[in-house]
Amino acid sequence: MAETYRVGLLGHGTVGAAFAELLGERADEIVPITGLRPEISAVLTRSRGTFEEVLESADLIVELIGGIEPARSYVLRAMQAGRHVVSANKQLLSQHGEELWACARENGVQLRFEGAVAGVVPVIRVLQESLAASRVERIHGIVNGTTNYILTEMAARGLSYAQALGQAQELGYAEADPTDDVTGRDAAAKMAILARLAFSTPVHLDQVVYEGIEHLTADDMEYAKELGLGLKLIGTAERVDGGISVRVHPAFLYAAHPLASVHGPFNAVTVESDAITEVTLSGPGAGGPQTATAVLGDVISAMIPPASTPETTAALTVVNDVESAFYLHMEVADRPGVLAQVAELLGMQGASIRSVVQKGLGEHARLVLILHPLLESRFYAGVHLIGQLDFIRSAPRAIRVIDEEFT
Amino acid sequence: MAETYRVGLLGHGTVGAAFAELLGERADEIVPITGLRPEISAVLTRSRGTFEEVLESADLIVELIGGIEPARSYVLRAMQAGRHVVSANKQLLSQHGEELWACARENGVQLRFEGAVAGVVPVIRVLQESLAASRVERIHGIVNGTTNYILTEMAARGLSYAQALGQAQELGYAEADPTDDVTGRDAAAKMAILARLAFSTPVHLDQVVYEGIEHLTADDMEYAKELGLGLKLIGTAERVDGGISVRVHPAFLYAAHPLASVHGPFNAVTVESDAITEVTLSGPGAGGPQTATAVLGDVISAMIPPASTPETTAALTVVNDVESAFYLHMEVADRPGVLAQVAELLGMQGASIRSVVQKGLGEHARLVLILHPLLESRFYAGVHLIGQLDFIRSAPRAIRVIDEEFT
Repeated sequence: MAETYRVGLLGHGTVGAAFAELLGERADEIVPITGLRPEISAVLTRSRGTFEEVLESADLIVELIGGIEPARSYVLRAMQAGRHVVSANKQLLSQHGEELWACARENGVQLRFEGAVAGVVPVIRVLQESLAASRVERIHGIVNGTTNYILTEMAARGLSYAQALGQAQELGYAEADPTDDVTGRDAAAKMAILARLAFSTPVHLDQVVYEGIEHLTADDMEYAKELGLGLKLIGTAERVDGGISVRVHPAFLYAAHPLASVHGPFNAVTVESDAITEVTLSGPGAGGPQTATAVLGDVISAMIPPASTPETTAALTVVNDVESAFYLHMEVADRPGVLAQVAELLGMQGASIRSVVQKGLGEHARLVLILHPLLESRFYAGVHLIGQLDFIRSAPRAIRVIDEEFT
Repeated sequence: MAETYRVGLLGHGTVGAAFAELLGERADEIVPITGLRPEISAVLTRSRGTFEEVLESADLIVELIGGIEPARSYVLRAMQAGRHVVSANKQLLSQHGEELWACARENGVQLRFEGAVAGVVPVIRVLQESLAASRVERIHGIVNGTTNYILTEMAARGLSYAQALGQAQELGYAEADPTDDVTGRDAAAKMAILARLAFSTPVHLDQVVYEGIEHLTADDMEYAKELGLGLKLIGTAERVDGGISVRVHPAFLYAAHPLASVHGPFNAVTVESDAITEVTLSGPGAGGPQTATAVLGDVISAMIPPASTPETTAALTVVNDVESAFYLHMEVADRPGVLAQVAELLGMQGASIRSVVQKGLGEHARLVLILHPLLESRFYAGVHLIGQLDFIRSAPRAIRVIDEEFT
């Protein structure tokens, strides 16, 4: 029976509740990784519990209260008492980061904060660890999902800013008071944290210049399309003339830029450095389950010495016959009934046709089908039979199709 | 003066040489992160040194020999002697991983291998640490840069497979004997490693079904374009019916799939899980400096206890006036000389015009310019002057343009 690792939780809002639930669900899987079983030992909410009780009960404190006070005092006191802390509080870290990081170093504890920037997109860990060997030149980020959702809707549906904001609020992508998001201040806090890590220079939120999306119009979106550009709220942190610039503003991107294809409430960050050219990370931005996943990842990291690869805990069968959608390319005699026969043979295997392109080439024709997913063994059985039909002019060629349409 | 941390290097080919060079360049920056100064203590090459000498001299062993033997014996002996090991050897890990990871656990040492899959794209760390809290459902990856380069060239320029392969060989993206790459075997080894980590189930290279790109034709590429699809060599590892499927084959992707826009020698991996929907990581695949960066990241991680945020080591100035390209949107009276006057005022600030769109709207016209980069202060000075011209009908509107064209 694994020993218990006690996690004290400060805050029980959307992310706090999602974290408590996820920890319960994943506890069994965490035992083989860490040798310990994590458990919520106490929770502080607005109406329940005291900080002292939570601190006493816990090996590690998770801070999900948000805002500056009392979060700042709690985090400092927890670290002074020798507890590791995991926080997703971007306001706190962008305004009091140096004080908190110094406190962590003095007390020999970990302060982890992956959830503070871009939800489960692991940009903090990548900057602090994977790219510790690189001299970062520049970071570009879409780090606010609310504004990216609004801009995506304006571009895709020709909505005005006000209409798109209203829709975002209805769907829960924007808060009733969206000021922090739409003015760029939320993104500025996140860029301050990223700049601090990338350039090892203190960066306070107040040093970040930011501009929001409230003044953008449907007309700007039209010109963007015409000029082959996408319009995004972009955070930039870069080296300039021996200093750094950290800023957030709307910006046009050329279509091939890695951030141009980041749509809806997604977040993405591109890190550029001479040795590596650029690395891009993308995924869902803040959201209860996403941020909770990032926070729990930090808790697991704090529980263990640096990653060793644990023993396998599953013994899943490796299956070789799976369902795939297919592209099927055939050279056939150009005569009536060919498509019908092919379709019949495929239908007998359970294949259904999604699209057809047929082209005449003199006496021959080229017939290309896209099929909906079916078991590969059945598909190839059908192709084998088709290959024996007398109107087939060369061996049919098959290529799989990843049958997902992302929007 | 920081204590020395001795790194023994096995192998001095492309990646080994790049690693040794990078370590020398970055040693000063690594001291504040780890408290130690890393240094190459000994190197084993085909013609120089013995394994015993390297082992004796080192706190940590970096294995960049490649292949199975003698790499396997060296790695095992190093771990049995209590040394951490960092390796980028995908063949070894995909065929003898369980033996090696067990040896690491038994000896209480770290075995890190970020460089084995997708170069500096931190997919190993993300699977082992960031997503330790997630139940992974599926991984899709473009994990072989050679084949992605060949397919990109076939699609973009209508080259045949043989022509594109020849070009890849000339440019150093493909080896003289490209068999491992073009047959999908290299990608299969990488997918075996990712599947092992994602599903905590032993997966051997021999269990991965793979198919290469040699049989693809320019004609397939034509149909792909026509059908709105991209053609890539895709590795898949996913849960199916209580088991898993791990496979590599060419596949068509719809344009909005996160992997569809990964071009040239780049690698990318998408990890899907219920809680997080999906996270995508992309960047340059294998290459000397990129893989060396991943290896050095692993060395740094092995040198330190789990990441704390080190003190800032720089005190860079935060600069507020930077160069930007701009989009400038003006409502003007529709009369001769307007564009000339605007251009002259901008020119006095050093702005040069990249593109112009002018549209008549009855008595008014709308004039939209895209400018090449200039200092923001100078741009806004020009806009201020333009705003005072008598033909301006409403305040000019400016939006920045990220002026990079990715190809």
